[in-house]
Amino acid sequence: MDMVEEKLAQVPAILTEMGIDVWLLFARESHTLHDPCFDLVVGGDVTWQSAFLLTPQGERIAIVGSLDRAALEMRGLYRELIGYVGGVSEELRKVLARLDPKRIAINFSLDDTMSDGMTHGMYLTLIKALEGTPYGARLESSDRVVSALRGRKSAAERARVRAACEDTVAIFDRLTPRLRVGLTEKQVAAMICEEMEKVPGLTLAWDPDHCPAVFTGPESAGAHAGPTDRVIEAGHIMNVDFGVKKDDYCSDLQRTWYFLRPGETAAPEAVQHGFETIVDSIRAAAAFLKPGVTGGEVDSVARNFITERGYPEYPHALGHQIGRVAHDGAGLLCPHWERYGALPDLRVEKDQCYTLEPRLTVEGHGIATCEEIVAVTEDGCEWLSRAQERLYLV
Amino acid sequence: MDMVEEKLAQVPAILTEMGIDVWLLFARESHTLHDPCFDLVVGGDVTWQSAFLLTPQGERIAIVGSLDRAALEMRGLYRELIGYVGGVSEELRKVLARLDPKRIAINFSLDDTMSDGMTHGMYLTLIKALEGTPYGARLESSDRVVSALRGRKSAAERARVRAACEDTVAIFDRLTPRLRVGLTEKQVAAMICEEMEKVPGLTLAWDPDHCPAVFTGPESAGAHAGPTDRVIEAGHIMNVDFGVKKDDYCSDLQRTWYFLRPGETAAPEAVQHGFETIVDSIRAAAAFLKPGVTGGEVDSVARNFITERGYPEYPHALGHQIGRVAHDGAGLLCPHWERYGALPDLRVEKDQCYTLEPRLTVEGHGIATCEEIVAVTEDGCEWLSRAQERLYLV
Repeated sequence: MDMVEEKLAQVPAILTEMGIDVWLLFARESHTLHDPCFDLVVGGDVTWQSAFLLTPQGERIAIVGSLDRAALEMRGLYRELIGYVGGVSEELRKVLARLDPKRIAINFSLDDTMSDGMTHGMYLTLIKALEGTPYGARLESSDRVVSALRGRKSAAERARVRAACEDTVAIFDRLTPRLRVGLTEKQVAAMICEEMEKVPGLTLAWDPDHCPAVFTGPESAGAHAGPTDRVIEAGHIMNVDFGVKKDDYCSDLQRTWYFLRPGETAAPEAVQHGFETIVDSIRAAAAFLKPGVTGGEVDSVARNFITERGYPEYPHALGHQIGRVAHDGAGLLCPHWERYGALPDLRVEKDQCYTLEPRLTVEGHGIATCEEIVAVTEDGCEWLSRAQERLYLV
Repeated sequence: MDMVEEKLAQVPAILTEMGIDVWLLFARESHTLHDPCFDLVVGGDVTWQSAFLLTPQGERIAIVGSLDRAALEMRGLYRELIGYVGGVSEELRKVLARLDPKRIAINFSLDDTMSDGMTHGMYLTLIKALEGTPYGARLESSDRVVSALRGRKSAAERARVRAACEDTVAIFDRLTPRLRVGLTEKQVAAMICEEMEKVPGLTLAWDPDHCPAVFTGPESAGAHAGPTDRVIEAGHIMNVDFGVKKDDYCSDLQRTWYFLRPGETAAPEAVQHGFETIVDSIRAAAAFLKPGVTGGEVDSVARNFITERGYPEYPHALGHQIGRVAHDGAGLLCPHWERYGALPDLRVEKDQCYTLEPRLTVEGHGIATCEEIVAVTEDGCEWLSRAQERLYLV
C-alpha cells in the first residue's frame, strides 16, 4: 500500500480518539513553503490556496485551484475534489457548513515544528475566509493529531527506518579502514558521501552543509557546523553525525573514532571512560524507555548518568523522533528548558522511533558521541540501529 | 561578491525607504520549514528558535541556539552573534530594548507567499516572548520590504536569470529534432531531463513531478498536472512548461509545438491563429510593461487582447516574478480575483524580472502557450529569454 494511503487510513481513528471533527490543512505554494504534513496525507504540492479536510468518518475533501485539480485527481487519494477559479473561501464555507464541525484542528503549534506548517499569513487568510461563520472560533492546534499520526509508525515505516540505519552502519564500516591522521574533516565528509553514492537509492537525510557533520579534536566547532579544513591529528577523537534517506525514510546516527598516538595500542583512559559513559548512558535511557514515561524523564536518565560521572550536561535534547525527516516532530526526549516548551511533558507512545544521542567532551581530545535509534514497543523498546559498542581505533 | 552579502547590502536603504526600524526574521528548524527569506539574507539554516535582526543603520544581529552559532560565524555575514542555551526570549528582549524600534517588520503576508515565511506557531511564540514589552504591538508585515529586496534584482542577478533562460532555450532547440508522433508526454519529459543533464550545474527549477510539464492534444490535463502516458498524435498541439536552476537562479519558459497530419505542410489556420494570438499578446504586454504601472493593468493588456480575438480568458495570472525561485514573490501580473488579494494593485518596479505566460485553447488540437521572461528597465523592459516567434512544426 502507498505510504500516504497508509497514513490517511490511520486518520479517522486518531481524530475520533482526540475528539476532533475536522482536520483542516490550509496552504498555498506548498513547494516553496512546505507544510510537512503534506508528505503524510496529501502526497504532492499545490500552487493556489488549498484546503484539505479529513474527518473521523473517513471523508477526504480537497478544495484546490482549478489547475491543481488534475494532478490531485490522478493521485486518487481524495474522494471529493472541488476546483475553483476565483477564490477558495466560498467553497470552504460551503463544505464547513455541510460538515458543521464543533472542533476544527489546524496546522499550527507552539512547540512542534512538524505540526506548525501553516504560515501566519495563511492563518489570517483563513480567519478572513471564515468571517461571518461560527467556524473561525472553533479552530485549535492540530499538534496532537499530527504527532500521533506521525509518531505512530506502521510496521512498514519502522522497517524502512531500520533499513536506512543498516545502510548507514555499513557506510561507517566501509569508512573506518579509509581513515588516517592527516585527513581533513571535509575529506572525511567527502569519503562518506562517496560511500553513500555507491548504494543506489540513498540520499542525504538532511542538508548537505551539515550532513555528514564531522568533528575532530578538542577545538572542533560543535554539533551544527559543517565539516571544516581542520586536520585529524593523533590523539584526536573524531565524531560523525550522518544519516541517509532511503525509500523516503531516514536514519540519523553518530559514531566516535580515536586516532592512536605513536606507541599507543589503546585509547587513553580518559577517552575510553568518556566513550563508555556515552554508551552506558544510552543503554540506561533505552532500558527506561517505554510507553507512558515522559520525554523529560527519559532525557534525565541519560543526563543524570553523565553528570553523576562528573561531566557537564549536554547542551541539547537526548533524542528526537525520526521517520520521513530526521527531526520527525513531537514528542522529544528533552529537558525542561524554555526552547522545548511543553514537549518534555509529552508521554512516549508505542511505535514511535527515537534517536538517543548524548554527548560529552573529553578535555584535550574532542567530543565523544553515539547516536542510536530505537522503536518503542508494548513494554520497552527495540533497537533499529546496530549500536556502536566499542570505540573505533585508527 | 557573495549573493547573500549583495542582498544584505541592499537592506539598509530599503528599510530607510519604508520607514522600518528593524526587520526581524524569527524561525526554527529552517531546513524543514524554510522561510524563503533565509536564502536572501541568512544563507544557511538554523535548528533552534533564532532571531535575525537587520536595521537601517546596517546592523546585522543574530540570536541563535548555541550549537547553530559556529556555522553562522564561519559564514561571517552577521557581525553580532549571540548564542543561547535555554531560550531565545531573554536575548531578543535585550536586543530590542537596546534598539528600541518603533516599527518592526516580520515575515508574514496575506498575499505574498515569498514574504510569508513565519509560521503561525512562531508568530504566537514571538508574541509570548515579547509579553510585557512594548514591541509586540509594534509588529507589522515585512512584505513590502521583502518584495523590494527580492524584486529589485542586481545586474548580477539579472545576468543569472538570463543565463538560465539561455540554457533552457538551448535545451528546447535540442529537443525539437527528437520529437515525433507516438511519444508519450512522459517520454518527452524524460528527453528534456536527459538534455538538461548534459549541461553541468543545471537542476530543475521546481518539483520534478511538474518540471518539465508536458501537455499534448485536446484532452491534456491542464497546467499543473505532471506528464502522463498520453500519446502525441498528428494534429496535436503540444506545450511544455520547463525551467532550470543555474547558479541558484531560475528560468521558467513555455513553448508550443504542432505535429503535422499526413499531407500537412503547415499548421491549420486555427492553430496558427491561436499561437500568433499568444505571441502577440505577450508582445503587447511587454510593450506596456514599465515602472509605475500596476500588475493588474499589465495582466489586462494580454487578457483583453486574447478575449477580443474571441478566446476565453486564461484561468491564471499573466506572469510572476522569477529569481531564486520560479515564483519569486510579489508583485504579480494578475487580475482582481480573490485569490490574488491586493497583488494586482502593486506597481511594477525597475529591475524586477517577470514571466509573461498567457494561454488559450485551440479546440480539437490542444493548448497554445508561450512563456517569456523580461526585466523591467528605466522606461520599459528588456527580454531575458530569446522569445519563441514561430510555432515549432514536427
